[in-house]
Amino acid sequence: MEKTIAVLPGDGIGPEVTEAAVKVLRSIAMRYGHTFHWKFADIGGAAVDKTGSPLPKETVEACEASDAILLGAVGGPKWDNNPAQQRPEKGLLSIRKHFDLFANVRPVKAVPALLGSSPLKEEIARDVDMVIVRELTGGLYFGEPKRHNESSAVDTLVYTRAEIERIVDQAFEMARSRRGKLTSVDKANVLESSKLWRKVVEERKAGYPDVEVEHMLVDAAAMKLITNPKAFDVLVTENMFGDILSDEGSVITGSLGMLPSASIRADGFGLYEPVHGSAPDIAGQNKANPSAAILSAAMMLRQSFGMDSEASTIEDAVMSVLEDGYCTGDLSACGNKVISTERFVEKVIEELERE
Amino acid sequence: MEKTIAVLPGDGIGPEVTEAAVKVLRSIAMRYGHTFHWKFADIGGAAVDKTGSPLPKETVEACEASDAILLGAVGGPKWDNNPAQQRPEKGLLSIRKHFDLFANVRPVKAVPALLGSSPLKEEIARDVDMVIVRELTGGLYFGEPKRHNESSAVDTLVYTRAEIERIVDQAFEMARSRRGKLTSVDKANVLESSKLWRKVVEERKAGYPDVEVEHMLVDAAAMKLITNPKAFDVLVTENMFGDILSDEGSVITGSLGMLPSASIRADGFGLYEPVHGSAPDIAGQNKANPSAAILSAAMMLRQSFGMDSEASTIEDAVMSVLEDGYCTGDLSACGNKVISTERFVEKVIEELERE
Ligand SMILES: CC(C)[C@H](C(=O)O)[C@@H](O)C(=O)O
Ligand SMILES: CC(C)[C@H](C(=O)O)[C@@H](O)C(=O)O
Repeated sequence: MEKTIAVLPGDGIGPEVTEAAVKVLRSIAMRYGHTFHWKFADIGGAAVDKTGSPLPKETVEACEASDAILLGAVGGPKWDNNPAQQRPEKGLLSIRKHFDLFANVRPVKAVPALLGSSPLKEEIARDVDMVIVRELTGGLYFGEPKRHNESSAVDTLVYTRAEIERIVDQAFEMARSRRGKLTSVDKANVLESSKLWRKVVEERKAGYPDVEVEHMLVDAAAMKLITNPKAFDVLVTENMFGDILSDEGSVITGSLGMLPSASIRADGFGLYEPVHGSAPDIAGQNKANPSAAILSAAMMLRQSFGMDSEASTIEDAVMSVLEDGYCTGDLSACGNKVISTERFVEKVIEELERE
Repeated sequence: MEKTIAVLPGDGIGPEVTEAAVKVLRSIAMRYGHTFHWKFADIGGAAVDKTGSPLPKETVEACEASDAILLGAVGGPKWDNNPAQQRPEKGLLSIRKHFDLFANVRPVKAVPALLGSSPLKEEIARDVDMVIVRELTGGLYFGEPKRHNESSAVDTLVYTRAEIERIVDQAFEMARSRRGKLTSVDKANVLESSKLWRKVVEERKAGYPDVEVEHMLVDAAAMKLITNPKAFDVLVTENMFGDILSDEGSVITGSLGMLPSASIRADGFGLYEPVHGSAPDIAGQNKANPSAAILSAAMMLRQSFGMDSEASTIEDAVMSVLEDGYCTGDLSACGNKVISTERFVEKVIEELERE
């Protein structure tokens, strides 16, 4: 197959981890006889510094001319006091909206070799295997009116039925391909938007008789993610709740540095990025854990290109390296073979070549 | 002193745990020579069953004629399909709004004897000692427009500067009386209301030079409550974020059954209730843990009546009973002296009388 991939390294450790992912993709392409074309472009603070905008026109065009987007990370203290339109995060929000990337998909899976890094007791973190599906282009993030002055402020949480239907369907499909359980999280005892959300979930479930559905209030979900995260299979929720719960979920297994994410559109186009941030404190030190970026690349192969076997090969290679006791310094519990970013990537590629 | 206390037992285990708290208060009144008058009234599902309303007029009047309110818990499956105006939670929302109880205060403190019950590793949960201050009468809960129809839905997050100032001041005062650290949680990179919130915090801090202030995004706070909860002293946030974070916070130390809360007004009037819910599955079985209700009563004595020593006496008595290895069945890690609700209360009263 021939595919074009837009690569947006971004800020902080973004460039080094995307470089790692690109190396792994090159190796996979060789092994499987694919041709990947690359379009490198700027986003976030790096783009602000060069062009004044966190999502320059050239970047949008590069992405439009591609089959998928691979992103590193954006943000850093350097741009923290910029005006809203010139902040790195704005690039992320704009690219989501521009490409209608309405479904943010975040798998959270316990890695046995890393349970020691989990803040949870091992018996609670062990065997966690869930996917958080967050609506990404609606709700409080974009609703109007949205403004403040000296004396008051307003944000608006709006959802249309169509917006809810498409994300709920996405989550049902995902539950069907997994253990068949869907937890829809809302605040239906307080929010009108949650009442419509719950109604839509109740309607759509007729189309998925093989999926068991439960509704959970967001406050209860925030507790259960800690007390019994194994109980979740697929969790679906609106944008703001999803922001909070998916970050909460990202730390429970102790493997934040391992977690990939996808932000996808109905037709399969998507943006893939690590869950972790730009970690400016360790940027450029050859210390960052490239696993999340590499696993995001694998997710891209599977979800946007339908390359299942290639994706699994990458995932297995990363796990093998970890199981051999190698890891970057962020994973305190990895054993004592702490290696650099570059060395870690070499190990992964050696594994790929061995298989 | 002479005080009138409105007692609203509510639903599920509410009646048994408030009865426990009342017994303890009677014993304290005797010991310290106070006179407490009681006004029992209905709220929640119990009130719906009797009057059709979750907050009947007589209940409001009883509270208006009192110096503080002691509440058990509301809710249960029996009323889950009621129309919005006849749901138990509506009673809670209405009483908060009616009495302008804008500050919800929830201490989260690790109890050494109970660390085994924490889902977190003991070294992370140990020494947690924080207070979550949640704005309780504004934001998404009450903003207009707030409606849905078949094709769309809207909720509105509104705050006035005055609403933000009073809750932020409350939190600053609390931080000043504790370890002097305030974490203000918002989503200023996305929400306009958070921008005003952050601005107000920045302005007010001039009045509290002894308090160290940090701003944290809500998604980062949801992570840090798990990875390093000890880092918090006082956390202040808006209503919806506070709902989620305070419930998340309630499970980290493993002592949900122990946690009291206060919902207070500027003049010291307040409503005191356990953080836990109505637990309909164990209602009426003499199994419920009355600690949270008893500790809520202690909080009432301290915060609404200025009875510091009485409050501490109660708190010490509860801790002594736990340290002696006695507890109700919810605290799996308590040792093996599991006792009933009534027996637990007797033990607490024995301790009170001993001191
Ligand atoms: C950077 C920020 C705007 C963004 C969000 O809130 O969506 C981030 O927290 C995320 O979850 O991707
Ligand atoms: C019952 C519900 C309306 C309420 C809230 O969301 O405020 C509850 O979750 C709480 O935190 O007291």
